[in-house]
Formats: sequence, C-alpha cells, structure tokens
Amino acid sequence: MYMQEILDEIVATIGQSDDRGQVANYIPQLACIDPNQFAISVAMADGRVFHAGLSDTLFSIQSISKMFTLTIALGKLGDAVWNKVGREPSGDPFNSIVQLEHENGKPRNPFINAGAIAIADAIMMGHQPKETLAEILNFVRFLAEDDSISIDETVAQSELKTGDRNASLAHFMASFGHINHPVDHVLGTYFHHCSIAMNCQQLAKAGLFLVADGMDPVSKKRVVSSQRARRINSLMLMCGHYDGSGEFAFRVGLPGKSGVGGGILAIAPGKASIAVWSPGLDEVGNSKLGTQALEKLVQQTGWSIFGH
Amino acid sequence: MYMQEILDEIVATIGQSDDRGQVANYIPQLACIDPNQFAISVAMADGRVFHAGLSDTLFSIQSISKMFTLTIALGKLGDAVWNKVGREPSGDPFNSIVQLEHENGKPRNPFINAGAIAIADAIMMGHQPKETLAEILNFVRFLAEDDSISIDETVAQSELKTGDRNASLAHFMASFGHINHPVDHVLGTYFHHCSIAMNCQQLAKAGLFLVADGMDPVSKKRVVSSQRARRINSLMLMCGHYDGSGEFAFRVGLPGKSGVGGGILAIAPGKASIAVWSPGLDEVGNSKLGTQALEKLVQQTGWSIFGH
Amino acid sequence: MYMQEILDEIVATIGQSDDRGQVANYIPQLACIDPNQFAISVAMADGRVFHAGLSDTLFSIQSISKMFTLTIALGKLGDAVWNKVGREPSGDPFNSIVQLEHENGKPRNPFINAGAIAIADAIMMGHQPKETLAEILNFVRFLAEDDSISIDETVAQSELKTGDRNASLAHFMASFGHINHPVDHVLGTYFHHCSIAMNCQQLAKAGLFLVADGMDPVSKKRVVSSQRARRINSLMLMCGHYDGSGEFAFRVGLPGKSGVGGGILAIAPGKASIAVWSPGLDEVGNSKLGTQALEKLVQQTGWSIFGH
Amino acid sequence: MYMQEILDEIVATIGQSDDRGQVANYIPQLACIDPNQFAISVAMADGRVFHAGLSDTLFSIQSISKMFTLTIALGKLGDAVWNKVGREPSGDPFNSIVQLEHENGKPRNPFINAGAIAIADAIMMGHQPKETLAEILNFVRFLAEDDSISIDETVAQSELKTGDRNASLAHFMASFGHINHPVDHVLGTYFHHCSIAMNCQQLAKAGLFLVADGMDPVSKKRVVSSQRARRINSLMLMCGHYDGSGEFAFRVGLPGKSGVGGGILAIAPGKASIAVWSPGLDEVGNSKLGTQALEKLVQQTGWSIFGH
Repeated sequence: MYMQEILDEIVATIGQSDDRGQVANYIPQLACIDPNQFAISVAMADGRVFHAGLSDTLFSIQSISKMFTLTIALGKLGDAVWNKVGREPSGDPFNSIVQLEHENGKPRNPFINAGAIAIADAIMMGHQPKETLAEILNFVRFLAEDDSISIDETVAQSELKTGDRNASLAHFMASFGHINHPVDHVLGTYFHHCSIAMNCQQLAKAGLFLVADGMDPVSKKRVVSSQRARRINSLMLMCGHYDGSGEFAFRVGLPGKSGVGGGILAIAPGKASIAVWSPGLDEVGNSKLGTQALEKLVQQTGWSIFGH
Repeated sequence: MYMQEILDEIVATIGQSDDRGQVANYIPQLACIDPNQFAISVAMADGRVFHAGLSDTLFSIQSISKMFTLTIALGKLGDAVWNKVGREPSGDPFNSIVQLEHENGKPRNPFINAGAIAIADAIMMGHQPKETLAEILNFVRFLAEDDSISIDETVAQSELKTGDRNASLAHFMASFGHINHPVDHVLGTYFHHCSIAMNCQQLAKAGLFLVADGMDPVSKKRVVSSQRARRINSLMLMCGHYDGSGEFAFRVGLPGKSGVGGGILAIAPGKASIAVWSPGLDEVGNSKLGTQALEKLVQQTGWSIFGH
Repeated sequence: MYMQEILDEIVATIGQSDDRGQVANYIPQLACIDPNQFAISVAMADGRVFHAGLSDTLFSIQSISKMFTLTIALGKLGDAVWNKVGREPSGDPFNSIVQLEHENGKPRNPFINAGAIAIADAIMMGHQPKETLAEILNFVRFLAEDDSISIDETVAQSELKTGDRNASLAHFMASFGHINHPVDHVLGTYFHHCSIAMNCQQLAKAGLFLVADGMDPVSKKRVVSSQRARRINSLMLMCGHYDGSGEFAFRVGLPGKSGVGGGILAIAPGKASIAVWSPGLDEVGNSKLGTQALEKLVQQTGWSIFGH
Repeated sequence: MYMQEILDEIVATIGQSDDRGQVANYIPQLACIDPNQFAISVAMADGRVFHAGLSDTLFSIQSISKMFTLTIALGKLGDAVWNKVGREPSGDPFNSIVQLEHENGKPRNPFINAGAIAIADAIMMGHQPKETLAEILNFVRFLAEDDSISIDETVAQSELKTGDRNASLAHFMASFGHINHPVDHVLGTYFHHCSIAMNCQQLAKAGLFLVADGMDPVSKKRVVSSQRARRINSLMLMCGHYDGSGEFAFRVGLPGKSGVGGGILAIAPGKASIAVWSPGLDEVGNSKLGTQALEKLVQQTGWSIFGH
C-alpha cells in the first residue's frame, strides 16, 4: 500500500472518529479550538512528503517545543544540561511537584513542565526573553525551512494568565537556586515558546534531522551529532508523553513528543518524521486520535523501533 | 571490525576495569560472588554466535527471569495481564512500595519487584509452585535449547530468608485482593524463578526470539506473535532497569533487562541478542561494567534503535 | 446537672441516632457486630463510677490496646522505646506504608499500626507470643481490677486471616532490621492483644491511672511516674485517632485512644477516665457516636484540657 | 519557689547554654541576629506579670503571627475557614508542597506556611494588603494593649526577596482556585504580618485571652467565645510546631506557636500566657533554648495540660 493511501485511509477512518477526547481546557485560548480537525504529514528520509487532512492548518505546538529547546540547550551547554535536569521518566503527571520536592528541585527530565522551564532558564544565558525567543524561533524556522513560523501571542497571553501551576514549579526550583534568571522572565520565555504555531507539514519537516542521525537527509545540513540525535530520540521515547510514555511506546513504538494543543511529532529512525494533529486529548494529555493514527501507521509500515 | 574482535577488545579493556561497582549485598548468597568476572555473548540473527570472557560460567539471572515470566503470562492471559500490572515506568527504586499505596496495590509495570510478584501469581493459575516452576524452567530451556538449565536452590533459600521486602510487597498487594494464591506460595515461586542459573551463551540464545519479531531466526520456531515481541521489547526499554531505565536508554539505546546478579540481556531488533555479565552493580542496581560493555558494543556496531 | 443525668441524656439522644457510621468491615468477625449498641462509663478521680447504656457488654478493644502495650514498653525499655518509634502524628491513615518508606522503616508513632507492631516486637524481648500476651493481659486485668478480662480468640483468628496489610507493614520494618522476632510471632502477638474484649466499665477503670498523674486515684497504686503518665496522654492527644487526631482534639479536647471495634478511651486529667462504645465508625475509623458522645460530655462538664 | 525565681534561674542556666541551635539563615535579615539573646515573660491569669532576660527587646514574631490571623479569620468567616484549610497535623516540614498536591491544594492546617497564606487570602476579603495589614496590626495592638507594635519593613522586604518557596505554595494553591486575590498581594500581606516585631512582654500579654477561655482575664475584654479559644489552643497543640509538634506536646505539654525568629508563645489554660525568645533553632525550626525553657518552667509549675 502506498503511503498516500495509508494516510488517506487514516483520515477517512480515525480522522472521522466520534470519540475524539477532550480539548485542553485549562488554557482558555486552546479550549475554544474546534475538536473536529485532523491532519497528518509524513516527511520521508528520501525527501518525499505526504499529507492528508488539514495539514496546512496552524496549531499550537505546546510541549513539542520542548524538543527544540532541549536541542538548543544541548548545543549551548553540552552535557552540563544534565546538571539542570535528569533523564529518567517521572512516572508522574506533567505538572507534578511531588518529585521536585523529593529530589531537591531538580526536575526528572527535560520534558515535564518543570524540566522544560529549567531548560528555558538554561538557554537564556543572561539574555532577555525576547532575544531567547528569537533564537528559538530562528532554530525552528531553520529546521522547517519556513520563515513564516511565529508565536501566537494570544495563546501566550492566555497561558500567562492561567499559569499558576507553572509559576509554582518555577518558584519552587528557584527556591533551590536552580533558576538563574527572574522567574517571570523564564516563565515568559517558556509560555511563548510553547505558543509557537505550526502546521503538520512544517512540523514533520522540522523533525527530519532526528530521522537521519542528526543530519537533515534532504538538505544534508548537519544539525546535531549522530550520538546527540539518538539521545534526543531516546529521551522522547522515555519521557515524551508524560505518564503515558510507557503506553505510547507499547502501542506506537516510536520516539515522539506530544503537546496539549493536540499535536504529536514522531520519529521513525531511518524512515520518516511524522506529524499528526487532532485537538482532543486522552486522560494523560496526549492527542487521542493522533496516537491512534500513529499506531495504525506503524502497523501498516512496520516502522516500530522494537522490531525489524 | 569483526564482532569477535569487538568482544575481545571489550573483555580486554572494560572487562579489566578497576571500578567494577558493588556486588549485591542484600542476598547473602550473591554477596560472596567474585566481582572480578566478566562475560559477553552475542547471538546474531543469522545464527552466528560470538563469546568472550567467562561466557560459560553460570550466574543467577535474577530479574532477567521477569522477561520470561512476563512472556509466559502474556501467553496464558493475553491482554488480561494488564489488569494485574501497568506498563509505565515507575520512576522509583525496584522495591518501592509508595507507588503501590498511591495506586491501590496495582504495580506500575511487570519488571519492578511488585509487578513480577503479581505476574508470578498470575501464571500459577491454581497450580503449586513446583508445577509453575517446572513450566518456567521448561520455557527457558526451550528458548535456550539447553535442558541443563536449572534453579540454584541455595540462592533461592538465601533469598527466602532475606526476603522481607518482597514479602511486604506481596502482602500489600494481597491486602488489595490482587494476589490469588497463598502469599508464601507466590513468593516461593518468585524467589525460585529469580534463582535460575544461566551463562551468557544460554541467555543470549534464549533472547533471540525478541530479535526477530517473535520467531527464533535460527530454528524458525515461533515463540510469540510479532506484535507481542515488539511490546515486550518496548516494556524492557521503558522499565527494564528500574529507575535507571532512562539512563540505559540514553547510553545504550537497546531494550534490555538487568538482574542484580550482574547479568543484562539486551536486544538489537533484527541484529542480535546480547548477554553480558559482571557482578558489580551501579547505584541503581544494574551491572556497571555490563552497561559499559553494551554502550561500547552499540557504539561500534551502530545498533541503537534510535538511529538507523 | 449530675453526671448520671448527663450520661442518661447522651444515651437517650446520641445513643439513638440513626446516623451511626459503618461497622469495620475488613475484619469479618467485627463486621457482624450489631451497630445499634451504645455504652458509656465514667470513672471519676474521686472513685465514683457512672454508667449508661450497655456498659457491661464486651467489645473488641482493638487499637485501644496500643495504649496498654506502649505503657508496658515504656516500663521495660524506658526512653529506648523512641529508638523504635517516633512521637509525631503521621498525617496518614492508620495503615499507611508511605511514611515508613520515606523514613527508613521507623514508624512515626506507637499508635499507627506499624508503630504498635514495633512496640509488640519490643516488649517480646525474646519471649514467645503466649508469654507476652499473658503479660499484657495481666497488666490490663491489674489496671481494671478484673481477672475475667480475656482475649477473644475468634476475633484474633479472623484478624490473622485478613491481616495482609499488617503483615506487609511488619515485613517492611523487618527488611530494615527493625523487627527482632519472627514476623509471624510479632503479628500473632499484635493481633491477639488487639482482640482483648472489655466492656466500658472495665475500660474506664483501666484508664484511671492516666487521670491522676500515673497513680490510680482510688487504690492509690502507682502505675507509672507522673511524667510518663502525662507523656502517654500527650501521645494519645497527638496520635490517638490516626488522621482524625486533629479533629478529635478540636471537637472533644481530651487525650484519647480509639479502636475500630468502636470503643474510645478518653482521659480528663484530674477529673475522670471515660470509656464509650458504639460500633459504627466515621470515615477515618473512629467511633462516630462515641466521638459525638464525648463532645457532648465535654460541653456539659467543661473538661477540655484547652480551657480551665 | 516563686515565679520570678524560676524565671531568673532559667535565664541563668538555660539562657547561658552554649548549645543554642542555628539562627534561621534563609531570610537574610534574620540570619544576622545575635544568637546570644534570651528572654522570657509570663503573664498570669491573675494579672501579675513576670519577666527575665531581654524581655523588652523586639524580635520578629514570624509564624506566631499565624495565631493572630487565624483568630481574625475565624471572627470574619466562622467555620467557613475550614473550607480553606484543614485542622490536622501535617507530618511534613513547614514548607512542604507534597501534601498540597495529594490533597488538591487545600492546606492541612492554618499553621503550615501554605495554610497561613490561605488564611491571609481569606481575611483580605477584597481589600488591599495595606488595609488588611492595618487590621492585623490593630488586633495585635489591642490584645497587647500597646500601640507601638509595628511591622519591621526591612525584614518584610528581606522575606519578599527570598520568598520563592512561599511564592511556589501560593501559586500552587491559586492553580486550584483556592486564592481569591492576586498572588503578590497575598504574599505581600503574609510576609508583612510575619514581620511584626514584638518583645516577650507584649507577646505574653497578647496571648492572655487564650488562657481564660477567650476573655482577657485582666481587662475582662472578651476576644472570642470560650469554645473558639479552646479550639485555637487545640490547633496550636496539634500543629503549632510543624513536624516538631508531637515533640513539643511530649516535652512541654502546652499549646504553643513558634516562629523562626526564635519566639514561642505558650498557653497554660487557667494559669498563664508565656512568651519566650532565643534566636537559635533546632532541626525542625523551633527555638532550641525556648523549648528547653518552657520544658523547665512546666516541670517547676506542673502546668502541663496532660496532668492536673
């Protein structure tokens, strides 16, 4: 079966499901998104691209941005990143503070909220939020080869207004001396990079460097070393879906990073970068239909990293 | 570089390291093992086998046995296994009871002690420990194609005598109604299957079915379905090394299961099944040199599941 | 108003309430107790005694026995008791194991289950359960001046059969080296002393030594030093009602110890020892009507230790 | 022995101890206090007052202020206060956030930091921090009959600058909808009322209403009802010294509230209100010599609420 047929069938079946999960309701601006949307894009290692559904509709990438900021942090700090955050799955919901207290304010990994806030702090390196955000945005535009990508300021403001839980996490880490910039600057940076708006086509393209050991297989641009690309993939597999990471690995079998905007970026090493989007979430905050779509795609293609 | 050369070099360098970690000291019978031992075996998908070091020396497989019992449980109960245990990494040490209390006595996954005890209970299905152990042993012998494999009764007795923590876990689950057989029967079964003695050659052979999507690639015997093999691999990757699972995925990049006897079984899908053994453990209970050896092997071969 | 009138009114009003709570259901033998029973006895410091309701009906004193075993332990070990258990309220349910894990197997206080099991172990001092139980029983009989008091073996057996949670706690402490006798001996002792059967008249009498700074004010027998009596009272106030201790102090304002058999022993220093019994329990395991009766009694008498 | 002699002896012995504990170091302004200070004041129910040591030296009352704000909150909201905070000891350190997460953002009691912040929010009732602080200050001045009592702005600013942990707690509760005013307003109010400066003479006087069932026994002014006074005392006994509350009840046997400035207010119902101050703290944050002094005073006077 050809890839386009697979995607078309996914859109025609899963994309039409009545059981779409719940749109994230704790960020007002996300709560009003129409749940009846679905898109999928596949960027192949050989340069071909396939799309189905609303693949050019922008959505808020939210926590998927954490993969980009981690990559930037690794570039700037190298292994010193691991002094700021750990690399173990947390076993807790995305916004849990319990682990932080038990482990003296060091987040378990860079993909839970606390960890991503610590990463935002790490990459600021004395700069203002505006400069840091410009740097993040430039990196994402470079990867996606699309300079139109930008931040949805309305979403960012909506997050800021309802961001008490994240403010709590940031102040908590600050109380242990783990935050080097003013807490409101760090939170401003974090909320804004979570509010980057992308479509599936852009996102799939932006993930391609993780498919081919750190080098964009089409443009041949090297983004990170081979070892680093593999490690980012391993972190996405272990921690990319909060306390649903085990479930995602079990069902889909690909490294991936989800966001509460309903997007998921998944990487099939050597094969393809896949972006899927459907706003409704499951109980742990991952796109319900997005996960199903990836499960189906992997069944059809055999791309699981756990088989051959 | 040929595989044999790689293994020989690993034995000559890592195998000679002075910094070997600590032998497990909470089981008296394991505490007296000579830490200056090292072995590695690689069973390739194409049928070739390579060994270096003390690859025919028997050791206690301990928690590696949990992969075998999980496989048996899936065969007997199918997806009903997931009513007994979850499939998320726990983020806690191997013998933690905190998670159990917070989640009403259901273990987070089949590879933490509580989960493996629940699996032992699940596969008993009304039988006596002796019968269940015979079944487990038969399965392991079948996989390894070696009828000499047996249980080290001295180790089992040693574990029984010092098994208060595991007894606590078992009674705790029983108090929630999650254990169907007498607690001492379940513990007897658990301690005995952990006390199976194998060498690296046998262990690498026994893991081959997970290399080739559920079918032994040499004998062509189908052990489990393709989907099941991949799922077992995903569980090993996510949860196979307790609260060091993220670290192992990061550094080695292969699904694997470790035991406090110092053994690790690692699976490179499509490539090889690898068994390594060195009794000294790191802080979280995984073989220190064994992990280093696998890291080295993957660097040399490029077998990480996170690259291509 | 005279004391007898107060008690009669309590029996006539609170004792007739329709909203009686739930009889403990996790011990089969307790689950079949008729909830429509109520008794109260007051033993005054001046030697007068008052009773109302079924004050000569026997009931299982359960955790009230922990006050007796703590008193014995303090007599045998002195302050060394505090090496075995702490003296802080736990903030957790009576059978929680979370605190134990966080604090290396040392129970927070002698009145949560784990603490009382540790106390049972402490007072065994190399003896058999039978001998230890004889000693406990002798002490209770001495206090109550009634040699007919005995253990309800049917209840003890019922507890043993359903005692997985307590077995879990005991094995957990044993795994930290905090239990010096075989776990089943310690549990046998614990379950049996919890199964002592007493009536309110006996129980009120047995508490009198805590009313008068350690000396029975009637017989003038000194049981413990003044300081020790006050400390036992402080422990009962802080920890005597599990995670309902704050509520009991707030509403009743007297040191007391409850049991899941529905009994409560409360001490008004300088005034009286009060025993109340009604089998129905509130959400945290304390006698619902018993607490209400004590609240009413203290309102009528002004006996709160927080006023004058 | 006369009271003055007792106090003089306490100053001469305990007040001279070399083992004074550590001055609170997390608030810079408190860290520079000379630890070699000691004071004690006793305001008797009969109107007599006794002092020894530096009883007219001002110190930062810190968490002792929580008793005043709780009293105000009960006056304004009545039992609705208990919708905002619980009344159980927490079993955790004063600034723990773990319990908050497990119990959906409702603090266990009004005396841990989170609880006191919730109380500050409760008494604001739509007003500005300035107005609320004026109200708190007026109440304290009224109780102490001293209009000179004021807030140490330098301490308040010092706390604001280092208040990340409390900011974390406040934002955490806000994320559950438990905070009705802007978080920085609530924190401003909280940090300022903690920075009220008083001396032992003023503090002992201000506590007198709790000695006599809610009415100042000298001026005969009724402050709160009898029942409310007793309940405030019960809360101080159960929760007044963080996770050292059990220890304080065990050793001292009086309701009390401590602050990290080194002050303790203790109430002997019917007898006296006692203020003691020594800046050095024990491991859980209570004045080391202050506790010893109270222990000694109670031994000499027999004022424990657990005896007669």
